Amino acid sequence: MSRIYNFNAGPAILPELVLEKVGRDMLNLEESGMSIAEMSHRGNAFVAIAHGAEDSLRRLLSVPDTYHILFLQGGATLQFSAIPMNLLHKHTCAAYIDTGAWSQKAITAAKKYCSVDVVATNVETKSSSVPDLTNLNITNEHAYLHYTPNETIGGVRIFDIPDSHGIPLVADMSSMILSEPVDISRFALIYAGAQKNIGPAGLTIVIVRKDLCGSSLSITPDVIDYAQQAKNDSMLNTPPTFAWYMSGLVFEWIEQEGGLAKMQKRAIARAKMLYEAIDMSDFYRNPVVPKYRSLMNVPFLLADDLLNDAFIAEAKEKGLVGLEGHRSVGGMRASLYNAMPISGVETLITFMQDFARNHHL
Amino acid sequence: MSRIYNFNAGPAILPELVLEKVGRDMLNLEESGMSIAEMSHRGNAFVAIAHGAEDSLRRLLSVPDTYHILFLQGGATLQFSAIPMNLLHKHTCAAYIDTGAWSQKAITAAKKYCSVDVVATNVETKSSSVPDLTNLNITNEHAYLHYTPNETIGGVRIFDIPDSHGIPLVADMSSMILSEPVDISRFALIYAGAQKNIGPAGLTIVIVRKDLCGSSLSITPDVIDYAQQAKNDSMLNTPPTFAWYMSGLVFEWIEQEGGLAKMQKRAIARAKMLYEAIDMSDFYRNPVVPKYRSLMNVPFLLADDLLNDAFIAEAKEKGLVGLEGHRSVGGMRASLYNAMPISGVETLITFMQDFARNHHL
Repeated sequence: MSRIYNFNAGPAILPELVLEKVGRDMLNLEESGMSIAEMSHRGNAFVAIAHGAEDSLRRLLSVPDTYHILFLQGGATLQFSAIPMNLLHKHTCAAYIDTGAWSQKAITAAKKYCSVDVVATNVETKSSSVPDLTNLNITNEHAYLHYTPNETIGGVRIFDIPDSHGIPLVADMSSMILSEPVDISRFALIYAGAQKNIGPAGLTIVIVRKDLCGSSLSITPDVIDYAQQAKNDSMLNTPPTFAWYMSGLVFEWIEQEGGLAKMQKRAIARAKMLYEAIDMSDFYRNPVVPKYRSLMNVPFLLADDLLNDAFIAEAKEKGLVGLEGHRSVGGMRASLYNAMPISGVETLITFMQDFARNHHL
Repeated sequence: MSRIYNFNAGPAILPELVLEKVGRDMLNLEESGMSIAEMSHRGNAFVAIAHGAEDSLRRLLSVPDTYHILFLQGGATLQFSAIPMNLLHKHTCAAYIDTGAWSQKAITAAKKYCSVDVVATNVETKSSSVPDLTNLNITNEHAYLHYTPNETIGGVRIFDIPDSHGIPLVADMSSMILSEPVDISRFALIYAGAQKNIGPAGLTIVIVRKDLCGSSLSITPDVIDYAQQAKNDSMLNTPPTFAWYMSGLVFEWIEQEGGLAKMQKRAIARAKMLYEAIDMSDFYRNPVVPKYRSLMNVPFLLADDLLNDAFIAEAKEKGLVGLEGHRSVGGMRASLYNAMPISGVETLITFMQDFARNHHL
């Protein structure tokens, strides 16, 4: 089988040009005589790669100098703990917006370290909408406000940055980072697991306002203490060098492709096409309120759940894979990250139309 | 420059056969139509790779069924915190043996969670020997005894497993794991960062007795809670899939080469050769008491520190790299991990002899 269209939610499709370069250089990176996987993280060659990746990411997101960019391990899930450990300072309470499965995981983890006020929730809509975010009940008792702009499982998107009433705003951008420009200055901290729009799994990006670092809880392990990692250029211990390198190549690819404005244009085009095909059909259905639909993760249901297995099997024959919905939701999900070409979406839509015709009840 | 001899302490040299396969399959792994870096960790293809790697490691180390093998993130350094979080149980104190820089880092990290009794130390020998480990002052107040069988920086090795007087024994095997057979049943827990004998940086192996899991401190983040990760086959969240895959290929390579007994034979041969060359010279010097010398990390000093830069530069011309000593120790260090061929050591020794002749004072 040659290369297929990969709709996985993460780890996910990556740019072919990047994969080609990684493969080509696996034994001997840039005449170093060794693989990227064999390079000392303290050596000049890797340090240049690491700084290059950071610089590229800083350009892409226009990250102000008043923010650290950290390259960490443990996934967004470890950040669910690291965020209260680092940002509670003297507070004992934090505010969270609940828009679905990933918000809820962040909330559960935070409760080990503080009390949590859920200041808005979409639970009564079965996580298919965005709750009212005006006049959130936030006070100075709250250390920060946390939200999840894009829910990877539910396919729900908060497009407008919530007003946190002056307290630090924290966002889990795992499944939408680098798909559009972001005004970093509106946030205290954003973070993302790499395995969607950044690179391979095993790397986590944290972008955090410098003035908020340095007052972590005493129980914070050094490797997830932002001040400690910042002081050591994210090399307090050996970083995930391969993932860092490959992510740098992805950043470079995005810059060459035209940056985040171009990524956003493509994301809108891909998503619009697929949602239109779903909405125009009486066979497929997306449960999310249209104005809150994710541009990255498109869950959809078939008219009959009993056809799910046939859909997956026939899609695979057409070279369309990774379409299974999350086990908690069922149905299908097409993730449309930066590296997904428009031809992938076109092929998917054609297949969906054929499938509906062939299996219509 | 073609492939060189890489003496880095970690990340470090990896088997060429493994690198070749990784490079070849980077765009399309085993006719899946995608890269390993693009595969869902929940998909059948990756799950098979993950289980295969675990099975191979279990065979190599003869890990009993009463132990979990966990594939985690964060390096051995995150385990310095995870170990007390998971193993203190109701204790408030743990015992540590101090044999150098890595022991000391483990001790410093543990002190955030409990009091630490250093029951033996080699500090008065400037970390160049192993202290007396008979009759350690261990009581049932201690949750566990921690030690570092191989000090990567000092090049000091504890060959005999210490008697922990019945309390759980914990070992940081980062720089000697898979270089020789180990009787796992003697340990409560062993752990290792991958970036020496296992694979690329970004993966940490923990092998832990099952009955010790499940009573972590309440502040333990789920991703470093052994019971949580064991219950989820190390996939509580997205694991470092690429590093896991590549480590599996290294395990397979070790099995094909003849297993750990063969690795040990090679390690002894490499180390013996290099120490003999050092000891026979009046130009080079290794400060470690001979019976406690590491088989993996060989630090050595030149007769004149002012020649260090010339040594590094001339070695590089001969294709010998990564020989700089750790910044805390100075001088040189040759790390001789599993993938280092005997020809690498021969080439190094010839170069060292030539250098000594040319620069003799």
